[in-house]
Amino acid sequence: MVINQSLAGVVLEARAAGAAVGRILGARHGIDGVLGGDWADLRRIAPARWERLAATPGAALGSCRHKPTAEDCDRILAALVEREVGFFFYIGGNDSADAARIVAERAAAAKAPIQVVHVPKTIDCDLVGSDHTPGYGSAARFVASAFRGDDFDSRSLGGVKINVVMGRDAGFLTAASALARERDDDGPHLVYLPERAFSIDKFAADVKRTVAKFGRCVVAVSEGIRDASGTLIAAKFSEERDSHGNLQLSGTGALGDHLARALKEKTGIRRVRADTFGYLQRSFPGIASESDSAEARAVGEAAVRYALGRAASGAKPEAATISIVRRPGRRYGVDFVPAPIRTAAKRTRSVPKEFIARSGNDVTPAFLAWARPLVGQLPPTDVIR
Amino acid sequence: MVINQSLAGVVLEARAAGAAVGRILGARHGIDGVLGGDWADLRRIAPARWERLAATPGAALGSCRHKPTAEDCDRILAALVEREVGFFFYIGGNDSADAARIVAERAAAAKAPIQVVHVPKTIDCDLVGSDHTPGYGSAARFVASAFRGDDFDSRSLGGVKINVVMGRDAGFLTAASALARERDDDGPHLVYLPERAFSIDKFAADVKRTVAKFGRCVVAVSEGIRDASGTLIAAKFSEERDSHGNLQLSGTGALGDHLARALKEKTGIRRVRADTFGYLQRSFPGIASESDSAEARAVGEAAVRYALGRAASGAKPEAATISIVRRPGRRYGVDFVPAPIRTAAKRTRSVPKEFIARSGNDVTPAFLAWARPLVGQLPPTDVIR
Repeated sequence: MVINQSLAGVVLEARAAGAAVGRILGARHGIDGVLGGDWADLRRIAPARWERLAATPGAALGSCRHKPTAEDCDRILAALVEREVGFFFYIGGNDSADAARIVAERAAAAKAPIQVVHVPKTIDCDLVGSDHTPGYGSAARFVASAFRGDDFDSRSLGGVKINVVMGRDAGFLTAASALARERDDDGPHLVYLPERAFSIDKFAADVKRTVAKFGRCVVAVSEGIRDASGTLIAAKFSEERDSHGNLQLSGTGALGDHLARALKEKTGIRRVRADTFGYLQRSFPGIASESDSAEARAVGEAAVRYALGRAASGAKPEAATISIVRRPGRRYGVDFVPAPIRTAAKRTRSVPKEFIARSGNDVTPAFLAWARPLVGQLPPTDVIR
Repeated sequence: MVINQSLAGVVLEARAAGAAVGRILGARHGIDGVLGGDWADLRRIAPARWERLAATPGAALGSCRHKPTAEDCDRILAALVEREVGFFFYIGGNDSADAARIVAERAAAAKAPIQVVHVPKTIDCDLVGSDHTPGYGSAARFVASAFRGDDFDSRSLGGVKINVVMGRDAGFLTAASALARERDDDGPHLVYLPERAFSIDKFAADVKRTVAKFGRCVVAVSEGIRDASGTLIAAKFSEERDSHGNLQLSGTGALGDHLARALKEKTGIRRVRADTFGYLQRSFPGIASESDSAEARAVGEAAVRYALGRAASGAKPEAATISIVRRPGRRYGVDFVPAPIRTAAKRTRSVPKEFIARSGNDVTPAFLAWARPLVGQLPPTDVIR
């Protein structure tokens, strides 16, 4: 929901640099635009319009799921050189950081003076070197809000409700469901992350115990849950893979429906429903987290400041990412710290074990304390006892 | 999202009546609470708390999907007489109105002086005699917001996106997806309501034409779409029925997945995704429509005023529902008009034909003009051309 905040941050900071920056070009659909020569002239967009663009969901320049080959990277470099690009900002997650890293290496080898900066953005929150990532707080706010509302639906009607949350490898987003809780008996009552092996029998036992205690059960399940051998539970239903070789998990309700069916069979509970939150998690307008929006903007600005500072110092380009580092102490605050681009490239981070309850079906208070300032306050609720 | 507004309206108006009202009891889980003697003392809840309860999603007293038998209705009457209930307010849709109607008939036959009032609430917007129903505007706001965000996701990534929207028989909620549009090329590009026969071949042709024009296609589909013979498309995937004999449509992604699969086969389009909005449509907190919230409160107040007025006049009880009647003229406004309870009972209303485009795959400008004040303004967006 906040990727355009980062784009606005880059463009407005670049505009503010005066004569140090010439044209400001935006490649449509990421590297596809670079390869296809499809550029937008971002200087032509008046500064006032950037506020509305920044609050618009989706990627204003478009996105791509295209993984560049070695040959593509050579062609990207050639396209940048041809356009006399001096600064190359690449917004995205760890795959994007890796693509940017390769382009920077080619540029260095070719002695092309292009400063490459990766601008972090992923709702998965899985970049190494950062406390969290732009995009996470707002998607987490959607998830926590959805669970808070859905828990009242469950209170009204009873039974078991399973909600499938995005997050292929990292469970940060699924974990955020626990922020929905205000009272001891609030859901989600069970939270399953990809970081812990998922067993359908243990799941059924957990649900039965919860229903015995509360008369109902709300469950948060990551789309990326795996069995003890590491095989995705969803692998049984989906064959489609993207160009990164990843199985399609979102845009289908198959996993939720499977879990609901299995649970009915194993427990005999009659009312079992499953929702898959899907793409709304990253695109629902008007509910972005305040701190996330501000940080997404700031990380774009920090990327430009780093690039311009390095150019002004006369040092040769050195590809970087911008890490978000949380300040110690009680009051929430972060710093935007340039780091070697390798930090964020390829590798990913999982939910640390101190955030996962020993039971394997919940998060810890440490997680809640960590996540709360990223998500912000949710609308308070009340119940009649 | 606003059913508790109506509950607050009833309770606060009853409290304001002074000595005319004694105890204020709330039956937990609707008629189940009446039958089981599970009552909450609503006078004990301080007026200040009602504001927070009113903004809480779900039904604060719980809900039920239990259809009362003739014998149940006799037992309900006996329970009301035993508790010395003088006024019986029943919040819900057309099935609830019908149950309340039967209880009122039994009361009249037994000469029990119980004034029954049905307080309308259904996100389906399908009650006869009302311009619209409490609950609809907020659920429609969720749907329109979700499509507005999702359309930008589609702009970023292309392909075909199918979103399945609630509404078993009436397409009002699915139609609200069209409120997402700001620009000529904004989605949803196709809107399918249960009021028009659905053909998978025509659907595939519609999508192909849209992709040829815009390079992508966002589709709104009602969960209640039927083929030319009137059979639910979803009937192929779900066997589960509730006590009203209705097929389970929500809480499963099967219909969306089926449509996505069929579309891939018929068109050869590779990227086809389906989301099913599910229960979030009626429970997502913090985004209720302003006019819907205010009207849901007012309809509860109007129900109490009608009941007290009738009692004060000395007339014998006459079961009523509260119809929402839109005032003529440009400026939006409504009146809350007591009407015979039969008006809202059992029968339902469909989307009128002047709201459905001749093509059968879109709504008309007349629908948009009708729906806009119910939903309110959405966050504005912008695109880079």
